[in-house]
Amino acid sequence: MDYRQYFVNALERLRGEARYRSFARIERRAGAFPYATWHCPDGPREIVVWCSNDYLGMGQHPDVVQAMVETAAATGVGAGGTRNISGTSRAVVELEAELADLHGKEAALVFTSGYVSNETGIATIARLMPGCVVLSDALNHNSMIEGVRRSGAEKLIFRHNDLAHLEELLRGIAPERPKLIVFESVYSMDGDIAPIGAICDLAERYGAMTYLDEVHAVGMYGPRGGGIAERDGVMGRVDVIEGTLAKAFGVLGGYVAASAEIVDAIRGYAPGFIFTTALPPPVAAAATASVRHLKRSAAERLAQARQVASTKTALAAAGIPVLPGDTHIVPVTVGDAALCKTASDRLLERHGIYIQPINFPTVPRGTERLRITPTPCHDDRLVGELTRALVEVWTALGLPLRHRAQAAE
Amino acid sequence: MDYRQYFVNALERLRGEARYRSFARIERRAGAFPYATWHCPDGPREIVVWCSNDYLGMGQHPDVVQAMVETAAATGVGAGGTRNISGTSRAVVELEAELADLHGKEAALVFTSGYVSNETGIATIARLMPGCVVLSDALNHNSMIEGVRRSGAEKLIFRHNDLAHLEELLRGIAPERPKLIVFESVYSMDGDIAPIGAICDLAERYGAMTYLDEVHAVGMYGPRGGGIAERDGVMGRVDVIEGTLAKAFGVLGGYVAASAEIVDAIRGYAPGFIFTTALPPPVAAAATASVRHLKRSAAERLAQARQVASTKTALAAAGIPVLPGDTHIVPVTVGDAALCKTASDRLLERHGIYIQPINFPTVPRGTERLRITPTPCHDDRLVGELTRALVEVWTALGLPLRHRAQAAE
Repeated sequence: MDYRQYFVNALERLRGEARYRSFARIERRAGAFPYATWHCPDGPREIVVWCSNDYLGMGQHPDVVQAMVETAAATGVGAGGTRNISGTSRAVVELEAELADLHGKEAALVFTSGYVSNETGIATIARLMPGCVVLSDALNHNSMIEGVRRSGAEKLIFRHNDLAHLEELLRGIAPERPKLIVFESVYSMDGDIAPIGAICDLAERYGAMTYLDEVHAVGMYGPRGGGIAERDGVMGRVDVIEGTLAKAFGVLGGYVAASAEIVDAIRGYAPGFIFTTALPPPVAAAATASVRHLKRSAAERLAQARQVASTKTALAAAGIPVLPGDTHIVPVTVGDAALCKTASDRLLERHGIYIQPINFPTVPRGTERLRITPTPCHDDRLVGELTRALVEVWTALGLPLRHRAQAAE
Repeated sequence: MDYRQYFVNALERLRGEARYRSFARIERRAGAFPYATWHCPDGPREIVVWCSNDYLGMGQHPDVVQAMVETAAATGVGAGGTRNISGTSRAVVELEAELADLHGKEAALVFTSGYVSNETGIATIARLMPGCVVLSDALNHNSMIEGVRRSGAEKLIFRHNDLAHLEELLRGIAPERPKLIVFESVYSMDGDIAPIGAICDLAERYGAMTYLDEVHAVGMYGPRGGGIAERDGVMGRVDVIEGTLAKAFGVLGGYVAASAEIVDAIRGYAPGFIFTTALPPPVAAAATASVRHLKRSAAERLAQARQVASTKTALAAAGIPVLPGDTHIVPVTVGDAALCKTASDRLLERHGIYIQPINFPTVPRGTERLRITPTPCHDDRLVGELTRALVEVWTALGLPLRHRAQAAE
């Protein structure tokens, strides 16, 4: 058997579709974000990161850094075991209490990543309800799709954010069967928002349970950073809220928050929770510091909203094709994998601006894009530089600028 | 629908089988390991941890702590994105180079956990080989079982470490079908070791590929801590070696090491790698420091081997039923879930000794056990205290001591 050939062929398929990924080697510097060092083949070079999921720059917040540093020095760097086998630290217990409070739930449970929390959380919940039907939004994240798959439950996919379609599907399910609606608040690649309250209305009408992924919203929306459900005043109507500690909170890990029984059942049955090492105390302590800070402080959220608005306005005025949306995510459509990669490379090499191309399988083919995430740390000067750089790249690559297209009509 | 009841019932099932888990809240202290603080209902209490997977105490090693502290202060606490989207730090690239070198492979790839590396690694490898048959050891870890399941490949389970059975199964597969043998080196609950060389012989004879989980061996076996395959001189014959950074290396995360093509293909296709935030630079830097230290220093391995031998000798002399085995894991059979929990509680409350009960689903029902992991930090005085405490507990609970049973024959 020539096993090597299987993998060589697999790589050729990626290259043939222009979706072989090169990872830029980026060195962050605490206090300097969004500036960073790009370790390119010619040596280190200063660049500006415009595609970070450290949406509020909390990964470099002094309180957060201090919590990691102090806890590492005090407790060491690792958990030393699974949660059951010596890995339940005081730090992780405190973090879970902080997260339960953030979402107004009885309990919360921390996982090594948001990916794992969705995958093993959804699978476990659905498995514990024999005969369960999962209703899943068409644009749900891969981690949710894998969770639904692994549950073995019947799956019905509703068109993205389409209440009528969701209702039609709910109506078709026998009333006595358990039903789980699985959806996100902010969809990270398009930057649009689910009608959470209306989905809860349907859930109540048809007796369904709700599971909401708020990974691209926690820390950033709601008076205490509880997410879109908090902002919309519907947090109490959602059964399970899932979030991440690795985006706006700037650290690592994921979690679910729900009733004591649901959390306890996931704790007792979820393989992706039981059989894995717990989050290290320094990581948990840093996350707690970040969650606590963003509960009290709205300054980061306000500054982010301001810089996002100013970026959208500047790009639109320059004719850059920004996808419309009401969130902090600014997607700019390219629509072709190779061009998207070329645009990204040119931005980095010529302008020192780092925006990773987003290609299949992260987004559907034909919708390849640059995904820009302005943070409170991107000031107006940087917004201006970004705008000029994008116009240069669009012009050089012959990509359509909107006002020009309109002027030609 | 009364959804609450599903979860209440699930919890009652756990309680009914005496496998509802209570997590002891443990606060580690750098420099004090294996001493730690148990936050029990009556307040904090000093205890000795005898069940940590921080097998060599590297989680508190000054170089490792310093690497985390310095990197957190320099770069901040988080990666800020997936590996593709701004999350590839210099620290994680260096870690991967260190791990490739550790196993004598062309490349390595880091995941957020060993669980994820197995699950998404095995699934991806098997999926890239259409028609693949996976041959899986009967005692493989849950993460490997989930990986095989998710691959969708045909699965054949061979009896634990049974070469004749493995050969019988291999012989029955059409020669042109790709075959992947998936197994561990050290099986962590029994503490026994796979015949890696002989499995590689079979793999060569029948044209199979090999995937070896060394999570309970890396750092601890082989001249540079490369694991059992290094110790046995067969590292180069194994196609994929999987390991963890969260046990002997004391930190967090998992990895695979293999040829450049295999690693690159996993990098490009594995959903559990693509769609999740990268390891934070401080975590990666701490892991690199630990791997580097254990490549150079055999002192920890020698001290561990000495204390493991002295623990086994002392327990056996006192009649405690230690499962035989040639590794650092010292399993003591209880054989009943409730008694196992009671023994563990009594050890903790009465003797200040923390050894978590290991019940189903981690081990088969009827083989419930205490799993003891002596480290270089457990000195002879602690071994003596452990032995006396176990004898007291065994006597108090009416559990059979071996020399008494033998004397009665």
